Amino acid sequence: MYDLIIIGGGPAGLTAAVYARRAGLSTLILEITVCGGQIINSQNVENFPAVPQIEGWRLADNWQKQAQALGAEVMTAAVTGVELRGDGKLVHTAKGDFEALAVIIATGAGHRKLDCPGGAELSGRGVSTCASCDGAFFRGRKVAVVGGGNTALEDALYLSSLCERVYIVHRRREFRAERHLVEAAGAKANVEFLTPYVPSEVVAGENGRVAALRVKNVETGEETTLDTPGVFTAIGMIPNNAPFANVLKLDEGGYAIAGEDCESGTPGVWVAGDGRRKALRQLVTAAADGAVAATAAARYVNSLK
Amino acid sequence: MYDLIIIGGGPAGLTAAVYARRAGLSTLILEITVCGGQIINSQNVENFPAVPQIEGWRLADNWQKQAQALGAEVMTAAVTGVELRGDGKLVHTAKGDFEALAVIIATGAGHRKLDCPGGAELSGRGVSTCASCDGAFFRGRKVAVVGGGNTALEDALYLSSLCERVYIVHRRREFRAERHLVEAAGAKANVEFLTPYVPSEVVAGENGRVAALRVKNVETGEETTLDTPGVFTAIGMIPNNAPFANVLKLDEGGYAIAGEDCESGTPGVWVAGDGRRKALRQLVTAAADGAVAATAAARYVNSLK
Repeated sequence: MYDLIIIGGGPAGLTAAVYARRAGLSTLILEITVCGGQIINSQNVENFPAVPQIEGWRLADNWQKQAQALGAEVMTAAVTGVELRGDGKLVHTAKGDFEALAVIIATGAGHRKLDCPGGAELSGRGVSTCASCDGAFFRGRKVAVVGGGNTALEDALYLSSLCERVYIVHRRREFRAERHLVEAAGAKANVEFLTPYVPSEVVAGENGRVAALRVKNVETGEETTLDTPGVFTAIGMIPNNAPFANVLKLDEGGYAIAGEDCESGTPGVWVAGDGRRKALRQLVTAAADGAVAATAAARYVNSLK
Repeated sequence: MYDLIIIGGGPAGLTAAVYARRAGLSTLILEITVCGGQIINSQNVENFPAVPQIEGWRLADNWQKQAQALGAEVMTAAVTGVELRGDGKLVHTAKGDFEALAVIIATGAGHRKLDCPGGAELSGRGVSTCASCDGAFFRGRKVAVVGGGNTALEDALYLSSLCERVYIVHRRREFRAERHLVEAAGAKANVEFLTPYVPSEVVAGENGRVAALRVKNVETGEETTLDTPGVFTAIGMIPNNAPFANVLKLDEGGYAIAGEDCESGTPGVWVAGDGRRKALRQLVTAAADGAVAATAAARYVNSLK
């Protein structure tokens, strides 16, 4: 029986482990692939506080080593569910069951991928899911944003202040985004709308990075090539909360409904990171959740002992 | 006219500057002393995500350099108030007025200091205000906690799982802390209550660090010496929000009433970091606030342009 099991070894889970171990909790991290979360797909991270620039894999590696040096155990295992059993929580995995007094669910969320040739292959090589992370790499250049929701329009506005030109590629004529965002984007001289268009191919250059985005008008079938080294996708995220619907309250998008205290509503269970409903999903906000959840978990575990 | 003025160059303010500059906002940080906030008083920081151990001054220095390398200006100036003027905000300082479209108040909070000989002198040399930051340095040793509120009792419980013995020194017989916390502490074999006692002297050892805490019974005048190399004070904090009462909503303790979106209630003004009412005040939660506030400020400034 562990004091704490953390499901997911991304920024939220690793920070939770650091705080939990410093509070003296025996701690197991269950991670489905490798620790680090989305940063392992980032060539460079430039928006981590107090760390001017670092390769994504190195940041992940430092983080995992910090947690392990403090005594957190890390195991590679796919978690299939959490079962409440008295004061304990039984965590089911493909490698067997593990029990703990407290559980932090920090499984994050995945970005929906572009469904066209080159979309997956050039991810991290010009195709990005994070304008505030990667926008600065395209300062003074042309970029495309794919999507029609608030995130797409906010990304386009953000990029319009950095980039020479921003194309918004959206499959419908109408936007799901709030009207004031659409109007604000429309008012920018360097923002151009392409509707109703869908990406038909992300084209690689000789350097193996994005050189252009081919888009197709869904009504006329006409194709156009946008010479953009940056393609930002904002076509939705899928929180990895489905296996935990019995201990979390999920909203219609699958995000866990929890405040900044990370309380799931189930005693002894917290939810931290991108899987929680919140305003800004960034490394540092995920890490903050991990600290908050682990501090609360330590208080809870101490109250049981 | 700046896009954004950030008042306070601690973790919240510096992270806000990083995010604001990456979003293309012209940004001025006004800091009353030196950037870094409370970490400049920490010998070592061990709970910063992905950074196993770093001297406090070096972390502060890296952070400030990151913000400045991105183009944030830093000025040393005492801010006396913020005045709303149409879309602009006029920030009054001892060095004159500065104007911006948006303001982030990130002035933090100060810990109330021990009012006895050695209390101030040995701060950071065994006298600590943060159990979760510094508790691990006293693993297996004896420590004292001074205070009678929730923080004091939570600190004592936290430390009881790490330390050989924890003395709770409180000036009254009754505790302001919630009853379940007092009962939980009372149930720990290694927690001892000294009430009604006040610290009379923090005693330095030959190494210049805390060797003992002398305490005095406020009813009998009897004095006792506790051989504790660690003295944790939890006698309250004082948020540095007083000059900004016209643009913030303050609670009875002086903290700004704002949710995790950091919205002050005044358009164009955000509050980030330890000065905000929140559950956990740590480097990483302050930094997260800075990112959230700056991202919102960028959206606001773009909507005005």
